[in-house]
Amino acid sequence: MILTRFNNTTAAIAREAGKELVIEEVVVAPPKSHEVRLKIICTSLCHTDVTLLHLKEPPGYFPRILGHEAVGIVESIGDDVNEFEVGDFVVPVFLANCGDCIDCKSKKSNLCSNMPFRMSPYMPRDDTSRFTDSNGEVLYHAMDVSSFSEYTVVDVGHLAKIDPDIPPNRACLLSCGISTGVGAAWKVAEVEEGSTVAVFGLGAIGLAVAEGARICGATRIIGVDVNPAKFEMGKQFGLTDFVNPKETESVSEAINKMTDGGADYCFECVGISSLVEEAFACCRKGWGKTVILGVDRPDARLNIGSHDVLDTGRILTGSVFGGIKAKSDIPTLVKWYLDKKLQLDEFVTHEMKFEEINKAFELLHEGKCLRCVLWMDE
Amino acid sequence: MILTRFNNTTAAIAREAGKELVIEEVVVAPPKSHEVRLKIICTSLCHTDVTLLHLKEPPGYFPRILGHEAVGIVESIGDDVNEFEVGDFVVPVFLANCGDCIDCKSKKSNLCSNMPFRMSPYMPRDDTSRFTDSNGEVLYHAMDVSSFSEYTVVDVGHLAKIDPDIPPNRACLLSCGISTGVGAAWKVAEVEEGSTVAVFGLGAIGLAVAEGARICGATRIIGVDVNPAKFEMGKQFGLTDFVNPKETESVSEAINKMTDGGADYCFECVGISSLVEEAFACCRKGWGKTVILGVDRPDARLNIGSHDVLDTGRILTGSVFGGIKAKSDIPTLVKWYLDKKLQLDEFVTHEMKFEEINKAFELLHEGKCLRCVLWMDE
Repeated sequence: MILTRFNNTTAAIAREAGKELVIEEVVVAPPKSHEVRLKIICTSLCHTDVTLLHLKEPPGYFPRILGHEAVGIVESIGDDVNEFEVGDFVVPVFLANCGDCIDCKSKKSNLCSNMPFRMSPYMPRDDTSRFTDSNGEVLYHAMDVSSFSEYTVVDVGHLAKIDPDIPPNRACLLSCGISTGVGAAWKVAEVEEGSTVAVFGLGAIGLAVAEGARICGATRIIGVDVNPAKFEMGKQFGLTDFVNPKETESVSEAINKMTDGGADYCFECVGISSLVEEAFACCRKGWGKTVILGVDRPDARLNIGSHDVLDTGRILTGSVFGGIKAKSDIPTLVKWYLDKKLQLDEFVTHEMKFEEINKAFELLHEGKCLRCVLWMDE
Repeated sequence: MILTRFNNTTAAIAREAGKELVIEEVVVAPPKSHEVRLKIICTSLCHTDVTLLHLKEPPGYFPRILGHEAVGIVESIGDDVNEFEVGDFVVPVFLANCGDCIDCKSKKSNLCSNMPFRMSPYMPRDDTSRFTDSNGEVLYHAMDVSSFSEYTVVDVGHLAKIDPDIPPNRACLLSCGISTGVGAAWKVAEVEEGSTVAVFGLGAIGLAVAEGARICGATRIIGVDVNPAKFEMGKQFGLTDFVNPKETESVSEAINKMTDGGADYCFECVGISSLVEEAFACCRKGWGKTVILGVDRPDARLNIGSHDVLDTGRILTGSVFGGIKAKSDIPTLVKWYLDKKLQLDEFVTHEMKFEEINKAFELLHEGKCLRCVLWMDE
């Protein structure tokens, strides 16, 4: 492990909206109070990176170091850091978990009040950057992680220490996407043994929801996607049935029929409000719960019949990061992987050198991969 | 107790939409299989009766015997009735509880599958009426209860046996409105010790929600109503604060400020979709739950920001009859009353003879009473 090159290391910089990233030398400042500097081992691509790369206006900022799904080793620590030591194997996460606030202490919330999520281009405590390029120009952070860099600085609130027995190209998946999907089934919906589940959208998140539902003991997991190839892929994550909206007049009617009155839990993993409404209509009366995971336009509205809520007792909710609290739940997911309870290998469809990052963006953009892991040191 | 006049007894008949009820002699046929005939002791008025009286089209039917909030004594039983005996003190309810179906057996639902709620003008099992007027004309039933009659026939699925120690002019309130409100806090929201609660609309149902929240240990119960007099009335049911939408620019801003980020539980008891949206906006991020109780127009739509669900983890749900299962939960509410845990006396603002029923309708229509109890035999 090389832990010395922190002052002149490389990163992939997003210099312009929609353009390819540029690998350059960068300077990564030492961590300040309550911060650690990480050497990133693996990082993977999540759709939010693609979105942020294409946004010309805030929360799009340039030049910037993107990336928020990763695993690394603590290289150095700032003042007031008691929770981590140099050499710790850690997962950085976009959603903070201070551990002290009312939300972090509650079993019901993962939305830290002390460090609320904000699409800021800076470090959370002092609103400055730790990155400069070789000309001394400040580079923006992304999602409090910025993992497309050999070294990065992360606030302790955004870090979870994990068992180093898990391979880094698996651990990095728990930093965002897979935890979000598994958590939505496990922590938000609280899927029970014998449940029926419908998952709208079979990308990595949707398949992770299926995997979470499978782990929770769901006996019927229905995938909804316009691409039948996804069903084949999804069978390994527990999908038992498939509905193609292109081949049925009404998805909700089809699912209501298949499940004799509706699924116990529905998950919208695409980010289209009309699909949320369809998912809600697929939920069983009495207790059916629909969880929104997909990110629609900021101004998107849901249009749901008042009586479809009142008369049915159905439940609608949403979740950020699948209700996962980084510091306590990610170690659990790691344990599940090591115990062969949680499948992660199957999500890694591609692995590359960090230098090939633009190729990875292309693959994700084209929908050709679930997760593409980039190795920093190979 | 007179248990003989069942063949020529009186009832208040709704002969025409929007017109006064007419007290007439009626013939109440004996109970068929799985039915009992009740002698009604007290009945009270609920807003749904007013609504049904004014509907010219189905679910409005004429001539009809309305009324669905009552208490009575079993006068005779039909075949296959094992659960009830002549003389039992019972509460008839509009929402069935067969006890055998998947919903009745689940802790999560009160929406009986074997006898689903339908606004039918007939008995549930054979779709015929047990009422005729003195000319032999068939009279329609209402909400499977039809309690504006000295005698009525009710299916065993719509009956709960209760402890006769509770006075009948209190017991009848548990047949619909008060159970709905208390149940919404107790069973649907599952309000916890120390919670903050906001109640939109301080009619009998809204005040019953406050009472339920008070029993569950809520420490702050905020009432929202355009009539400040309701606040004074509501203090006895645990209301601690009051917001008048006429005197504030934004109810949600006011409540978010009062509660430092939103109430834990919000209840919409009016039946206006825009108020549901306002209530949802008053809910705390992370775990805030909004329960719809108010009945809006059949075609009313909710318009809620997709991100207001996704980013906040807030929960939206609804409930019929406050999630109450008649056969198990109404006896519990009776016990709570007898143990002085649940307040019922305070809801009875008026008592009258059954013959004065049109005066009671007027009072309710004018918003001058919480509950008006009608005594059949005085």
